[in-house]
Amino acid sequence: MAGNSFGRIFRITTFGESHGKAVGVVVDGVPSLIELNENDIQIDLDRRRPGQSSITTSRAEEDKVEILSGIFEGKTTGTPIAMLVYNKDQRSRDYDGIKDLFRPGHADYTYFKKYGIRDYRGGGRASSRETIGRVCGGAIAKKILKQVKINITGYVKQIGNIKVENYDFSVIEKNPARCPDINKAKEMLEYILTIKEKGDSVGGIVEIVIKGIPLGIGEPVFDKLTAEISKAIMSIPAVKGIQFGAGFDCVNKLGSELHDELTEEGFATNNTGGTLGGLSSGQDIVFNFVVKPPSSILIPKRTIDIYGKETEIFTKGRHDPCVAPRVVPVAEAMAAIVVLDLLMIHKARKIL
Amino acid sequence: MAGNSFGRIFRITTFGESHGKAVGVVVDGVPSLIELNENDIQIDLDRRRPGQSSITTSRAEEDKVEILSGIFEGKTTGTPIAMLVYNKDQRSRDYDGIKDLFRPGHADYTYFKKYGIRDYRGGGRASSRETIGRVCGGAIAKKILKQVKINITGYVKQIGNIKVENYDFSVIEKNPARCPDINKAKEMLEYILTIKEKGDSVGGIVEIVIKGIPLGIGEPVFDKLTAEISKAIMSIPAVKGIQFGAGFDCVNKLGSELHDELTEEGFATNNTGGTLGGLSSGQDIVFNFVVKPPSSILIPKRTIDIYGKETEIFTKGRHDPCVAPRVVPVAEAMAAIVVLDLLMIHKARKIL
Amino acid sequence: MAGNSFGRIFRITTFGESHGKAVGVVVDGVPSLIELNENDIQIDLDRRRPGQSSITTSRAEEDKVEILSGIFEGKTTGTPIAMLVYNKDQRSRDYDGIKDLFRPGHADYTYFKKYGIRDYRGGGRASSRETIGRVCGGAIAKKILKQVKINITGYVKQIGNIKVENYDFSVIEKNPARCPDINKAKEMLEYILTIKEKGDSVGGIVEIVIKGIPLGIGEPVFDKLTAEISKAIMSIPAVKGIQFGAGFDCVNKLGSELHDELTEEGFATNNTGGTLGGLSSGQDIVFNFVVKPPSSILIPKRTIDIYGKETEIFTKGRHDPCVAPRVVPVAEAMAAIVVLDLLMIHKARKIL
Amino acid sequence: MAGNSFGRIFRITTFGESHGKAVGVVVDGVPSLIELNENDIQIDLDRRRPGQSSITTSRAEEDKVEILSGIFEGKTTGTPIAMLVYNKDQRSRDYDGIKDLFRPGHADYTYFKKYGIRDYRGGGRASSRETIGRVCGGAIAKKILKQVKINITGYVKQIGNIKVENYDFSVIEKNPARCPDINKAKEMLEYILTIKEKGDSVGGIVEIVIKGIPLGIGEPVFDKLTAEISKAIMSIPAVKGIQFGAGFDCVNKLGSELHDELTEEGFATNNTGGTLGGLSSGQDIVFNFVVKPPSSILIPKRTIDIYGKETEIFTKGRHDPCVAPRVVPVAEAMAAIVVLDLLMIHKARKIL
Repeated sequence: MAGNSFGRIFRITTFGESHGKAVGVVVDGVPSLIELNENDIQIDLDRRRPGQSSITTSRAEEDKVEILSGIFEGKTTGTPIAMLVYNKDQRSRDYDGIKDLFRPGHADYTYFKKYGIRDYRGGGRASSRETIGRVCGGAIAKKILKQVKINITGYVKQIGNIKVENYDFSVIEKNPARCPDINKAKEMLEYILTIKEKGDSVGGIVEIVIKGIPLGIGEPVFDKLTAEISKAIMSIPAVKGIQFGAGFDCVNKLGSELHDELTEEGFATNNTGGTLGGLSSGQDIVFNFVVKPPSSILIPKRTIDIYGKETEIFTKGRHDPCVAPRVVPVAEAMAAIVVLDLLMIHKARKIL
Repeated sequence: MAGNSFGRIFRITTFGESHGKAVGVVVDGVPSLIELNENDIQIDLDRRRPGQSSITTSRAEEDKVEILSGIFEGKTTGTPIAMLVYNKDQRSRDYDGIKDLFRPGHADYTYFKKYGIRDYRGGGRASSRETIGRVCGGAIAKKILKQVKINITGYVKQIGNIKVENYDFSVIEKNPARCPDINKAKEMLEYILTIKEKGDSVGGIVEIVIKGIPLGIGEPVFDKLTAEISKAIMSIPAVKGIQFGAGFDCVNKLGSELHDELTEEGFATNNTGGTLGGLSSGQDIVFNFVVKPPSSILIPKRTIDIYGKETEIFTKGRHDPCVAPRVVPVAEAMAAIVVLDLLMIHKARKIL
Repeated sequence: MAGNSFGRIFRITTFGESHGKAVGVVVDGVPSLIELNENDIQIDLDRRRPGQSSITTSRAEEDKVEILSGIFEGKTTGTPIAMLVYNKDQRSRDYDGIKDLFRPGHADYTYFKKYGIRDYRGGGRASSRETIGRVCGGAIAKKILKQVKINITGYVKQIGNIKVENYDFSVIEKNPARCPDINKAKEMLEYILTIKEKGDSVGGIVEIVIKGIPLGIGEPVFDKLTAEISKAIMSIPAVKGIQFGAGFDCVNKLGSELHDELTEEGFATNNTGGTLGGLSSGQDIVFNFVVKPPSSILIPKRTIDIYGKETEIFTKGRHDPCVAPRVVPVAEAMAAIVVLDLLMIHKARKIL
Repeated sequence: MAGNSFGRIFRITTFGESHGKAVGVVVDGVPSLIELNENDIQIDLDRRRPGQSSITTSRAEEDKVEILSGIFEGKTTGTPIAMLVYNKDQRSRDYDGIKDLFRPGHADYTYFKKYGIRDYRGGGRASSRETIGRVCGGAIAKKILKQVKINITGYVKQIGNIKVENYDFSVIEKNPARCPDINKAKEMLEYILTIKEKGDSVGGIVEIVIKGIPLGIGEPVFDKLTAEISKAIMSIPAVKGIQFGAGFDCVNKLGSELHDELTEEGFATNNTGGTLGGLSSGQDIVFNFVVKPPSSILIPKRTIDIYGKETEIFTKGRHDPCVAPRVVPVAEAMAAIVVLDLLMIHKARKIL
């Protein structure tokens, strides 16, 4: 209710600030008897980690996860799993110069106004380090989903005006842009580096594909699969829009063109993105979302200080010129949590 | 948890099917001592009502609301307000021909697979008549919000490729397209009628503007204002995507162009759509969403029956060629519920 | 969150006041394909009904339930089931004399102070008519539980100092005291009628036995079966205490006497009341609770009016001298909702 | 939903097992700008700590709390506060002998049956070490409540047949029995030590008094103050019953004797325990609850092993002969969380 928990049966509660002691998560509702260790989590944390490539922030965090509870002799016990990642490479002094200033496009203004206090060091709780807890929880969800043959894949679909043309999922994790089109991946990388050199930042579109989800998952009318995923994804820092299947292109199509026909072999097309009435239709769930350019840039902008006085600001901290590639594992995690949670809620009624 | 409730402190629980006895809602968490009667609700129900214009279904429903509880001597008592709208003009026979068939693009397929049973008459619970409960609950939320100077306005922004160019909010409710550009409204109407004559359907983009919302509303990190609104809107039938402020256009902009500068007079621009870090920034909240073309069309399409056999279908019932204008009050209602609920949660902590 | 809903997956939301148009409930989370009609509900409503015997209020309410949604061709569809009972025999004038007075022991004082407004007619929402919604929801839960061989039985265990000595469940519903000991039932009846003649009221102890509940139901650590049942029962008007198994007598026993030994034939005793660590142990769940004497009596008592002025009051309305027998179906209903809900939550994790 | 969280706006999520790395809690919903440091928490942890006196287990745990997040420059920021207590003096080998046996009266049987796995070391998650998280969260709640003049005091009211006769709150924390009657305290201590020497255990009754709570706190009809407190207290390990005010004694009283009269000076008596209709009446909230004798005793009892074979068991670990004195701070913590949470929910509606 106060906003730091997500999910109902399978539920994560995250905590921690950018420059505090640690960030972490408590995961409740995990089925018992699942084999689980730190490596299962670390794989996804490493995909989210800063410093993993030339286009991410150089903040040197190993982000090694430690599991504190919920595992006995290598298996989950059904009790909550608490996980910690200690913050190590905090350079809080980088923020001394801006501690009284609000960065345009950044949450520090609204946090200060909401709470009357502001942990200015690295964005505090509004920092994207907050997403570490999501990734840890999501890694558990993904592992469980795999056991019921549900797989979630995310990738970068567009950076600036560079769009994916050919899809080869096997190359996604082999390029720093997390792009399934190896030619476009190179263009994206070059473009991001150019922007970085200018001290500027750029946005992107990330797409998620969920394969293997059974029919009928999601709860009418408010907790539709589409609605829950939208909340989950829109809660990720910097996300400004989401669309399923044809999405905003629906405005350009007639009903007779758009609706996916059913045949004896299954659906003829997948314009809906895998849902009907908000429930999974048995097709792949396909949605994408847009990530805005990071707000920390080296180019000076007008702003005000906490006393309301106008001034100029630019951010010296170590930042990403484009976060889309690092958002991929975060979005997969959130999608996994939604799907697992709704699968459990669907199962709950099957008591007869 | 089973999906028919929305909101936490201010909370609606809806019920009812298209061709059942009645649809309705229970609204919990209403502050006491608010003056309230059926007229306050009826105004918005009339904006949602079928048969209100040449471009809506001709199903003749008066949709008169009856308040059953929660009011004493014209004022709210703080106890739950139950409201009913009886279904009257059901022509269930219209659906006899398709009772074993699944309509492409319609929820009847997934409901049948989820529950093993299907109320085929007019879509059952998946019918948009379900939204009556939302509008009733939202009308109360809107009335309360007005008392704290928060106003929510919705309108149609685009139908097919016809886009609003000039904004005049005073004309919105004076044309059946609910379009703030009176010239474009006429084009939209003509286009929709052309589509209707062909037995086809068309989508649209609806925009919502929220004025007067205080700074800092929304709960980090999962229950951001943007995240909650996204869930609320994406739960409305036929909605396929949502975006705030610049939205998907963020991919085409650099950070230096996009981020709204702060000046002593306030924000210089509003590219974020009124939120920072997902919390209200004091600017207008602006978002839009896309509604797909209705799935009930007269043009035959391939489908299967409940036994899996392929056949053709077209829908004889009375349907809307374009639902965007009727979705406007539904979206306003959902936005109002989110804003009021988050305002209450924000207030909850102010106990010192 | 605002208090009028109970349960998570299987969830009831109740509404309505004593002298309003109607009282009712929306039940969400009902599994589909359950055969259900008004008779299934009416049986328990008739057990709760006023005027059913010489020891209940003479308010003449038929309390006929009407189902508005969620059923198709005699079966549940998985969508919410709304149920209504219209109020008929309201004599609001009975309350004119006390509309500015607070009845000692009654909720009208705290409601007025909480909400700043008071529906003085028959107690408004604080009336025990509120429990009609609970009984309607519970009747559905009980029907479903029976299909998985879980049965819930309630009875009056003590009135004044008259205590049950012999247990014969077959006589419970055959005497107005709902007492399983036919000799004690007569004593109880006589005692209650004596008290009634004096214009006074008396309390009682009600016991509930749940048979057939599988092992391990309840969620550690906060949502234990014992904790959830306690909340459910303590939310019933007039209940002042609850205990499981040996209950308060535990203070008089040593660990070596009290703890139930496990043998190859099962538990040797049931001092815990059927739970260990708050989870069901496979034994019968046994708990009882105390109901205070009704607050509406004919004997004058000191009180104050809404302006704080001291005066005397006695209540002319038609009231029960002892509510214990009528509370039995309400408590069964609440217990059924808790058990079904926790059964569903337990089931939710069984996805592998 | 999976049981390890409690509260709605002010919400704790606990984790950790008796012999795991650590136990802890995440506290969400804390108002910002509260001065808070580890000492505020440690005071109550020390009151719960093992080894604090001759009548508690000799397990040597310092139970030093570490705050990981949510504090900046000595003040709360409104973000979640995560707290850890590392387990140090685990002697897991003590449990090797019983790892396949179920202790009578202990949760290990039901946990094993629920989850199919059992962390036999010290009871795992079912250990009362789980309550450390509650005490940490409650310490924050108590500090906040004190600022609005609400104080919560707990004490031991009865051990065996030794009952408090005179109340002097100033001596409670000055004797190991936490008894407000210094003469009875001595008797209790002697009695407990006698029981301990026999290798047996004994129960107790603990009472909680809440002073200063405003009128009207609690949410009708299901989330009454009494109902929420009952759930909170009944979720504490070993608690078997709870009663408010006159409690079970209500069965022996007539309405004319029991109901508290209202006078111009306030209530004449407090038989209800400070609530009317489940809402706070402005009087002291008074309730008590019974704690059963600990299940770990040195006296052999029959039991079965995980294969169902009958055998004998006695427990060698270090255990408390009577937990009532150590439960006092746990119950205060749970009561504080309920009161603060309901205070916040009450406040939430005050937006006009």
